[in-house]
Amino acid sequence: MAERWRNTALLVIDMQKDFIEESSMIRVKGGKSIVPNVIRVVELARQHGILVIWVVREHDPRGRDVEIFRRHHYNSDQVGPTVKGTVGAELVDGLIIKEEEDYKIVKTRFSAFFSTNLHSFLQTSAVTNLVIAGVQTPNCIRQTVFDAVELDYPNVTVITDATAAATPEIHTANILDMKNIGVKTPTLHEWSEEFA
Amino acid sequence: MAERWRNTALLVIDMQKDFIEESSMIRVKGGKSIVPNVIRVVELARQHGILVIWVVREHDPRGRDVEIFRRHHYNSDQVGPTVKGTVGAELVDGLIIKEEEDYKIVKTRFSAFFSTNLHSFLQTSAVTNLVIAGVQTPNCIRQTVFDAVELDYPNVTVITDATAAATPEIHTANILDMKNIGVKTPTLHEWSEEFA
Repeated sequence: MAERWRNTALLVIDMQKDFIEESSMIRVKGGKSIVPNVIRVVELARQHGILVIWVVREHDPRGRDVEIFRRHHYNSDQVGPTVKGTVGAELVDGLIIKEEEDYKIVKTRFSAFFSTNLHSFLQTSAVTNLVIAGVQTPNCIRQTVFDAVELDYPNVTVITDATAAATPEIHTANILDMKNIGVKTPTLHEWSEEFA
Repeated sequence: MAERWRNTALLVIDMQKDFIEESSMIRVKGGKSIVPNVIRVVELARQHGILVIWVVREHDPRGRDVEIFRRHHYNSDQVGPTVKGTVGAELVDGLIIKEEEDYKIVKTRFSAFFSTNLHSFLQTSAVTNLVIAGVQTPNCIRQTVFDAVELDYPNVTVITDATAAATPEIHTANILDMKNIGVKTPTLHEWSEEFA
């Protein structure tokens, strides 16, 4: 069984407190509700030998490595979103990195491939199939997916109810666009049936 | 004075214990002797408002993100070189990251530009001029320098006695090659006279 999945990696994107917790100014509104499903996706991946890669943002305290349009969040006395080493940059409760098995990628833009070693690491790990969970659908999920397709990863899967956006309409519209470029878009239940 | 240097960044490359300390299996033989000069380069940079960027290796404990030719270092029970979070990955004594001012780039290959956000960060920081110190001349120094030239950074400077290789001959041969593609190659003393 593990053999079948050894060329597959799960990318869990931006499941950090600042993007999920209701107290956060920059939370993704649909994020909290998918946490149980993301936990389940990670469990299934581990059980079947799928490499788990945690993709997170960890920003400079002064915001010097943040997109220009959101750099104002880092100009006040308050700690900006997902600053490296702060609580807001931690994974939400229930998600844990296994240091010896998993891998962690820090990104500073939407796509997990942008200015990171993700593609290099996937190549040397013989990964050709990607499964994606996390937030948020129109930005980091979609940009990562489009880059993966452009980089010719032959199998890209987005778990539709383990990804989320600010509204269901935005989420659905983006899932459709990804489906239309050949991406698989199962629900968690449908995806889990592949292991049956 | 700071105005003159505000488009300049100093890249301090791989000045980590595993590359420098004499007890390390993978040390760069010429590395220890340049430590005082690298410290002085950093001091001069700070005094004149030059952005200090620390470029370091931090590898996966299992070596999954290491070049294939050196992956065997990570297959034994011993801790491999510059594994993330280990003492060997720390900067050598005398070099300290100032968290609020400096910036840190983690790389997994020779060039500081390879699969990192360095170019993106330099662009958004309006950096066009690079000054380079560290180890080792034929690998990480040279690859970073050649990438910088290829990316059209108009001013690239390598401090010849704040960089080092396994032997003086290798060092000198590589400095010559870089000089021949338009790179400035002053000594620390010559470079310091620019601040006079």
